[in-house]
Parts: sequence; structure tokens; C-alpha cells
Amino acid sequence: MAKLVGNAIFGQSGGPTSVINASASGVFQEALKQNDILKVYGAANGIRGILEENFYDISEEDIEELNLLKTTPSSALGSVRYKLADSAVDDTDYKRLLEVFKKYNIRYFFYNGGNDSMDTCNKVSKYMQKTGYECRVMGVPKTIDNDLFGTDHCPGYASAARYVATSTMEVYHDARVYDSPMVCILEVMGRNAGWLTASTALAAYKGQGPDLIYLPEIPFDMDKFKKDVKEAYDKNKGKVIVAVSEGAKDKSGKYISEYASDLAKTKDSFGHAQLGGTGAYLANVAKEVLGCKVRAIEFSLLQRCAAHCGSKIDVEESFLAGQMAVKYAVQGTTDCMVAYKRAEGKEYKCEIMLLNLSEVANTEKKIPADWITPDGTGLTQDFIDYALPLISEPSAPPMEDGLPRFAKLKKVLAKPE
Amino acid sequence: MAKLVGNAIFGQSGGPTSVINASASGVFQEALKQNDILKVYGAANGIRGILEENFYDISEEDIEELNLLKTTPSSALGSVRYKLADSAVDDTDYKRLLEVFKKYNIRYFFYNGGNDSMDTCNKVSKYMQKTGYECRVMGVPKTIDNDLFGTDHCPGYASAARYVATSTMEVYHDARVYDSPMVCILEVMGRNAGWLTASTALAAYKGQGPDLIYLPEIPFDMDKFKKDVKEAYDKNKGKVIVAVSEGAKDKSGKYISEYASDLAKTKDSFGHAQLGGTGAYLANVAKEVLGCKVRAIEFSLLQRCAAHCGSKIDVEESFLAGQMAVKYAVQGTTDCMVAYKRAEGKEYKCEIMLLNLSEVANTEKKIPADWITPDGTGLTQDFIDYALPLISEPSAPPMEDGLPRFAKLKKVLAKPE
Repeated sequence: MAKLVGNAIFGQSGGPTSVINASASGVFQEALKQNDILKVYGAANGIRGILEENFYDISEEDIEELNLLKTTPSSALGSVRYKLADSAVDDTDYKRLLEVFKKYNIRYFFYNGGNDSMDTCNKVSKYMQKTGYECRVMGVPKTIDNDLFGTDHCPGYASAARYVATSTMEVYHDARVYDSPMVCILEVMGRNAGWLTASTALAAYKGQGPDLIYLPEIPFDMDKFKKDVKEAYDKNKGKVIVAVSEGAKDKSGKYISEYASDLAKTKDSFGHAQLGGTGAYLANVAKEVLGCKVRAIEFSLLQRCAAHCGSKIDVEESFLAGQMAVKYAVQGTTDCMVAYKRAEGKEYKCEIMLLNLSEVANTEKKIPADWITPDGTGLTQDFIDYALPLISEPSAPPMEDGLPRFAKLKKVLAKPE
Repeated sequence: MAKLVGNAIFGQSGGPTSVINASASGVFQEALKQNDILKVYGAANGIRGILEENFYDISEEDIEELNLLKTTPSSALGSVRYKLADSAVDDTDYKRLLEVFKKYNIRYFFYNGGNDSMDTCNKVSKYMQKTGYECRVMGVPKTIDNDLFGTDHCPGYASAARYVATSTMEVYHDARVYDSPMVCILEVMGRNAGWLTASTALAAYKGQGPDLIYLPEIPFDMDKFKKDVKEAYDKNKGKVIVAVSEGAKDKSGKYISEYASDLAKTKDSFGHAQLGGTGAYLANVAKEVLGCKVRAIEFSLLQRCAAHCGSKIDVEESFLAGQMAVKYAVQGTTDCMVAYKRAEGKEYKCEIMLLNLSEVANTEKKIPADWITPDGTGLTQDFIDYALPLISEPSAPPMEDGLPRFAKLKKVLAKPE
């Protein structure tokens, strides 16, 4: 493939994770090293920063701070939820992107995100190909939801899973401290795929986790829930822990959170329902059935930004994913997403592979049906064998006064050539 | 003081912390070493376990597991909220306690808890004195609320504070990730004293914390809140973080949580209102005022059991507090609570002192008025200087598969002599 010399831009999109900045660190540090990449830009708020010519010159940043990005949660450049129209219907944004790419001689476009972001990345890639503007486009995955197609797992999942499993074990001990019954419902993020909710099964595997786990993969049946929770209550002398995905829905597709409130009726710009209140609603149901004390705990934003309880493998792989996206692009690859391929065998090993963007855009990977126990409220050993190696080593940011020292970027605005 | 030979019993009471078991570890390991203490018992669910003759023989436990208690959250023996009547009005429980003490030759009684538990401890001590039954009674403090009288700080506070400050810093980054306004309300535990809510000021001190902090020490004024949040919104381009104590109340003494729901009308056995929903209520108020996206995050049980994000000083001091309670008792001290005395000077040093139980029972220590900024929504440097040394070093449990390895006790039921 021909040599391509020009500038590179990187953007972060969608809900952040505690390692999305590790990928940013990998992209930036590798791109700054590459001779074919002249300038390295970081887009403020993803694609919107490019449309608005609002991006930073990364060469102005201190290398120490770029290194600290590895353990800094959230999207340091700012994120965005912005859906590009079909270019056949409305090509306004695409024309503007092309204009900006030309103005700043952008020849490398790296985009870091989940399903919706890979859709954006794919559309940009196809448009640039169509117009004949030479530009290498690479997707870098991330999502605590772990639902991207074709990759063994997603950057961000393991750290969120380690936090959720650890906190679940801690709550397990706290929630059974009194000599009176108590039902505790843990609400975990995950719209359509239950991978993160399933991570509570790692706590159960250690004998300190939920009695019942409800995933969005299995239609939620309220009568069965009442029966399940009553049985667990009787079996465990009134101490019950339940984990439920925020995206749990009944067979008609109605979210449990919709049972409770009208909040879910507001839609965000991708047409997803705004979720919330699933745990609180089920806690009230349990209270009605059992008449005991109940408590709902929502891991909320905490689960996706808990860099202090991250996974070392996740941090290292996320950095590597960013690095390799740059290396592949410079070597001539375009229109691909980097992905993880796990080696066969007992020992955990993982390498980077490539997937076509059109394959991954908008395709969701759910938990295999045979990894869910027949009663629909637990995970099999296959899931434990899959997930446990990913969280096997801790990661935490460097400390200053006992508190995390996160990266501080200067964010010097870029100027055209 | 005369030598006193007999058995010892230890109980845990009130809401657990992530280091209450560190004190248990200190009491158990020291008591097992002392020649004057023959048998060491752990009461199941505090005072109730004694009343019901439901306690464990600690000599049956493995020393490794007793050591792991140092970093195991929650109350390993089980806790209780049980208020002893005034013995002058109803001495049923006291007579029963004396009966059990005699039956098991209990001559040492160690009780670990907060305000209400020190009240229990004090009542037991005074009753035993009155009846002439020789028994040394020692209180060991604990409370994430940090509101016990006479001690520089309380075991459990620093670990909860480190978790809350760390998580607040992480949420600070996550909650400002999009290019649209967002008000995020963090709800922190603390009924009448705002020490734990104030720990979010440590995050603010690092430039990554709340814009506004509402403590129960300052009467909550809804109109002022609306004005404050609007000002912060305008100043920070729509990104606002608020920390509020679950116990925030208006000048009439009405809890903010009571504004929202009738939940708060149910009372627990100590007559405290059941709190909850303060953050969610204020998030809705902010939404009404500003019309932007809002989110309420409740640290809930997570903040009091997060041993994975503990304070090393807290763990070590809590262990020492348990140890010293036993040493003092064997040397002849009774009717006291062990407490912390901080040395003057810049370097952090702390030693164990003694306080009379009647001094500490039911007395609450609040944040000094001059440590709160004049606008009532921040903490001064005096607070930072007080709290920062307490969280300066991390503590985490040993790991197994990347997950915490918590203590597993055998809990062999004790039999009378």
C-alpha cells in the first residue's frame, strides 16, 4: 500500500469508560512517533469537534500527562452522542467533514467508541472512499457493555466488570449484617446485552454474590420474579441479593423501568429509551411480596468511571488497541476496527486482529444462550472461564495524597496549516 | 487494680464500616494472647446475641482468617440496632445479661459501635457496677459519620472518606463528558453531622470535586439552593456537581427527603427517620430551575463497605483501637471508650486515649462552624488539613483472581463452662 503522509485526528464518542483514555494514550503516543503522521489532533467532543473545527494540538501536551491518560477515567477530550444521517439522504455533515479534513490535511481518522460510534466511523470511511479523498479510517472499540461484534471482549468491559464484581462482594457482606430480612437489588448498566450485569456472577462464583441475576437477554417475567425472590428468601433466611440489568424488559419489549415511570418515554438522539429506576421498581415489588426491608443500589456512573478499581489487562489492551490502530493505518490498513482475539487454551492470551467496519457497525453481541443457566437467573462456568481472566489483576491510577492523580491536558486549540 | 480472670465477649453494633472488622481483629488477637482472658467469644448480632446466648468461640478460628478481618468490610459477627431500656424503668434485658455473664463467666465486655452503641455500652457498664458484678466494660468506637464526641476522628471515617473523595473525582470527570449541560447530585450518608459529605471537599481541593456542598450542620434553604445551582451553572458553562448529605434539613428540621416522599415517616427503633431520596429530589428541583439533564447518584451502602478503596491509617488505627481496649481492660480500666488523640504539628501522628463512656454516649460531634465557608456550601483549609492526612495511604484486601479475599469465619457456637 502507498505511503500516506499527513495529519491525524482522534475522537472519543459515546458513554465513557475508565480506559477509553488508555486507548487515546496509545493512539497519541504512537502517532507522535510515526514519521508519516505530521500533526496529531484530538477532537473536542468527537465528531462534533471536527465539524466545528474545535480540536487540540496533541504535540503541545506533556508526555507524562499523556501517560497518565492510561489510568484517567472518562473521555479526556470530551465525548458526544451524535448520529450522522445517511449520506444518501443528507450529506451536509459529510461535506463539512471533507472540508475540514482538506483544510487541516487530515489523512488519518481514528474514532473510539461503541456500536453507534462504529456506525459513524463506517459512514465517514465509506463517504471518503466514495469521494476519492485518501484517508485511512480506523475504529477503536470501547464499551463497558461488551456488546461489539466480532471481538472477544471490548476495551472498558473488564475494568467495569472488576468494579461491579468487587462492589457486589462488598455489598453482599453489608446487606446481611442485621438479624432481620433484607432484599437488596443491584442495578447494573447494559441496554440490550447483559455482560456487565453478568459480572456479578463472578462475585457469586466466590460465594459472595447475587442469588438471582436478570439479564436483558431473557424476557423478564414479573410473576416469575416474584416466585424467584420468594424462593430465595425462604432458602436464605430472608437475605436476598438480586442483580438486574437496567435494560431488563418483558416479552413485549417493555422495559421494567417503564413500568415505574414515564421517564423512559423520553428518547435520546439515537432513539434509545432513557433508562433508570429498574432496581427501585423491583425493590418495591419485592417489598409487596415479602413485606421486608428492601434496598435498591444503582451503580450509576460509578461503574463506568471507577479507574481506582480497574483491570490491568484492560488498561494494557486498551492502550495496545490504540497503538495498533495507528500502526496498521500507517502500514496501509483502512476501513477497519481493531479487535481482540483470544488464544485457545487455559492460559489467557490475547492479540489484536482486524474487522471490517461494516461488519461491526450496529451489530450487537449478546451473551450466548447456553452461558445462561436454564432457570434464566444465573451464568454457567463457561461465562466464569470467559470473564475471570479479564479481571485477574488490579489497576489503579498513581496516587497523590492518597487520591488518584489523573491526567491534566493543556488542550491547546489547533490552527489550520 | 486487682487482677481479673475470666472470659471475654465482643460485639458489633450499628451500621457497619469497612474497618469495624479490623477492630474485631485487634480485640480477638489481643484477647487470645492475654493470660487473664480464658475464652474469647464473639456475639452474633451484638447485644442481641448475648441476650439469646448466641455467640461464637473465637479460639476455633484460624489465625489467618482473623488477620483477614482487618480488610473485610461489614460486621463479620452480624450487627444489631437494639436500644436497651432505661434500667430504672425496665431491667428485664439487664437481668438477662447478668445471668448470661455469670453463666459464661464473662468478665470482659467489649462493644464496638457508634453513638447508640456507646449508649448501650454505658448502660451495661453502669448496671454491672450497680449490681456489684465485677466486669470490665470497654467501648470501641466506629462510625463513618465521624460524629463521636471527644475523639479526633472515628474508626471507619477515613476509609469511607477516601472512597467518597475518590469516587467523586471520578464522577467529576464522567459527568462533564458531553458538550451539553448536566447537573449531577451526589448523595452522601450522614444524619446530623456532615463529615462524610465534607470529604467530597477533598476532591474539590484537587480541582475535581463539587461546586456546592450541603451539610446537615447548615439549615437547608431551597430558595438559596436554586440560586446557588443557577450561579454555578452560569459560571461553569452548565457543568455542576453538588454533594448533599442525606440528612440535609430545612430550618424547621424537616428533612429534604421528607419533601419527596412519605418514606421518611417510618421510624427505625432508635427514632431516626429513614432517609433516602434527598439527591433525587434536589436533581428534580435543579431540572425545574435549569431545564437541563440531571442525575442523582446515591453512594448508598457502597460508601460504608468499600474496603477495596480503604485508608491504611484507618485500618491500622482501628486494629490498634481494638488491641488497646483489651490491654487497658486487662490492666484494670473499665467504663471507658478508647479514642484517638492527634499530636500537634504538621506531621500526622495519633495515639490512643481514654474517655468515660458517660461522656461519649449519645453526644454528637459536628463540623466546627468555622470550618464551613461563609456561604455555607464549602469547607475551609482547616477541614482539608484535618481530613487529608487520614486518607493519605491506600488500603485494599489481598486478592484472589483479582477479587478481594475476605475473611471466612467458622462461627462455632460457644457452650457454657
